[in-house]
Amino acid sequence: MHAITIPEPGGPEALVWDEVPDPVAGEGEVLVEVVASAVNRADILQRQGFYDPPPGASRHPGLECSGRVAALGTGVSGWAVGDEVCALLAGGGYAEKVAVPAGQLLPVPKDVDLKQAAALPEVVCTVWSNVFMIAHLRPGETLLVHGGSSGIGTMAIQLAKAVGAKVAVTAGTKEKLQQCAALGADILINYREQDFVAEVKKATDGAGADVILDNMGAKYLDRNVQALAVNGRLAIIGMQGGIKGELNIATLLNKRAAVSATSLRARPLTEKAAIVAAVREHVWPLLDAGHIRPVVDREIPMDDAATAHRVVEESGHVGKVLLVVP
Amino acid sequence: MHAITIPEPGGPEALVWDEVPDPVAGEGEVLVEVVASAVNRADILQRQGFYDPPPGASRHPGLECSGRVAALGTGVSGWAVGDEVCALLAGGGYAEKVAVPAGQLLPVPKDVDLKQAAALPEVVCTVWSNVFMIAHLRPGETLLVHGGSSGIGTMAIQLAKAVGAKVAVTAGTKEKLQQCAALGADILINYREQDFVAEVKKATDGAGADVILDNMGAKYLDRNVQALAVNGRLAIIGMQGGIKGELNIATLLNKRAAVSATSLRARPLTEKAAIVAAVREHVWPLLDAGHIRPVVDREIPMDDAATAHRVVEESGHVGKVLLVVP
Repeated sequence: MHAITIPEPGGPEALVWDEVPDPVAGEGEVLVEVVASAVNRADILQRQGFYDPPPGASRHPGLECSGRVAALGTGVSGWAVGDEVCALLAGGGYAEKVAVPAGQLLPVPKDVDLKQAAALPEVVCTVWSNVFMIAHLRPGETLLVHGGSSGIGTMAIQLAKAVGAKVAVTAGTKEKLQQCAALGADILINYREQDFVAEVKKATDGAGADVILDNMGAKYLDRNVQALAVNGRLAIIGMQGGIKGELNIATLLNKRAAVSATSLRARPLTEKAAIVAAVREHVWPLLDAGHIRPVVDREIPMDDAATAHRVVEESGHVGKVLLVVP
Repeated sequence: MHAITIPEPGGPEALVWDEVPDPVAGEGEVLVEVVASAVNRADILQRQGFYDPPPGASRHPGLECSGRVAALGTGVSGWAVGDEVCALLAGGGYAEKVAVPAGQLLPVPKDVDLKQAAALPEVVCTVWSNVFMIAHLRPGETLLVHGGSSGIGTMAIQLAKAVGAKVAVTAGTKEKLQQCAALGADILINYREQDFVAEVKKATDGAGADVILDNMGAKYLDRNVQALAVNGRLAIIGMQGGIKGELNIATLLNKRAAVSATSLRARPLTEKAAIVAAVREHVWPLLDAGHIRPVVDREIPMDDAATAHRVVEESGHVGKVLLVVP
């Protein structure tokens, strides 16, 4: 088969569409013939040589895909050859075929295009596990989403609105904020021109955000803690603004607040399967009913993954950038 | 009645046993004739002028007491004049009488001396709300308790052992560590001579602590995060080592760990009542059965509260220092 390889870490041109051996479905795994994958920031770090795949994972990048079941490993039930699926991956999505633990497969939601389903697994699992399973966002609470127009952001807005929360977002342009508003965001903050702490407080009668979903890490840590409400929960899922930040423990303590940080890729299979099962129970009905939808910026042929990486690195997109098998 | 007043913030001598007006039980409150109170670090901060009582609370120090119900305010049921009780207070324990919201009263456990019951409310509620309600310590997990010989520490050791957890403690002398061991602590770390990160890892096959109960704040923040296990939870309840610390978000994220910080005193009545109810359900049966007990270092007459504060400030004690109404 063909897959994206990374002979030498580097810029987007380091991604090479090359012939490689086919993967094989091991015990408890399913072989998927990939139709599309999608770009995640972790793929860029992997391309640059900063984020090795976890032990046992495919060397090819790609944390999610959609496609058709091509073969079943031993001990797999509930899936059949030919099923249209999407899947959460530990790697290997940028390829014509990938072997996936059966617990990480999901059906393609009703009325969602098979290609577009590749935009779902990583963002839905990340948002659900952090905002709902860890931070327990409740109806009537306020969620602040940094990078509201990203793949994660566009899904977080929709899911939070679907459960009856109020949503504040930050983004860097008026156009991106308008697209967040179209998805349901209530409070629009241009981080280039406005102070998000002041804006969130103004919009919540001084209370602050009950939950914050953050991809900036160190750069926003102190201000995120300032923006939290009493009993607030800060969920960090990225470190685009650095690794080491100053934590004001007095502010955290006075608010009885909490800071968590997670990554999905490194979780053991059992935890991934539990998240996928929770997502199938709680989020898939919303997708099947059309209440939420994948947000796709554009489709790019997988053999030109370099272009897709450039788009994401320049942050010119809204939602997910798909890679379609040529 | 008499109570400890603080005419001017300062050293232990700032505590003055003086005549003051009697408190009155308002709606939903109970008037308690105090038999004993106990010293908490927050009392010392209040004496020094750094920790004002929350709005509506008594101006006198004292976050817990034991005694007898002397009168019932309107709307109180379930308690009768003469009942022996202990209580969680927002202040006012260093006095002959105190008015308490009924939701913060607890019965004196079977076979516990009425005076010694004053050592229970603050430590039991703090440990239960942090280690169990927030950090969800589970059987078989490892709890690291800093200041294992403190009032909080001695209760945390006992409660964690009672639910089947493994307990590591830090303390500053061999004698204090021995007393922790006598309460059930499994891993004894002298913080003056040993690195607690290395010792906890050594004792857990490299895994680290699942839950850490910390009173040091900034000074220990980075090392606490290093000492956490995957899925670990750091619960901060004090800032004896400073307010602002460096948080390594990459370490936190790689471990999928969380940091929370709380104080009990500032919580609204409904949250305090919920904690007291949970404690009565889960911890009181352990006290009634004699599986855990209050650990009291010494009893000092309340009019000599200055001496009690000196003892606690010098950290010469193990467990709680009681103040007994003369």
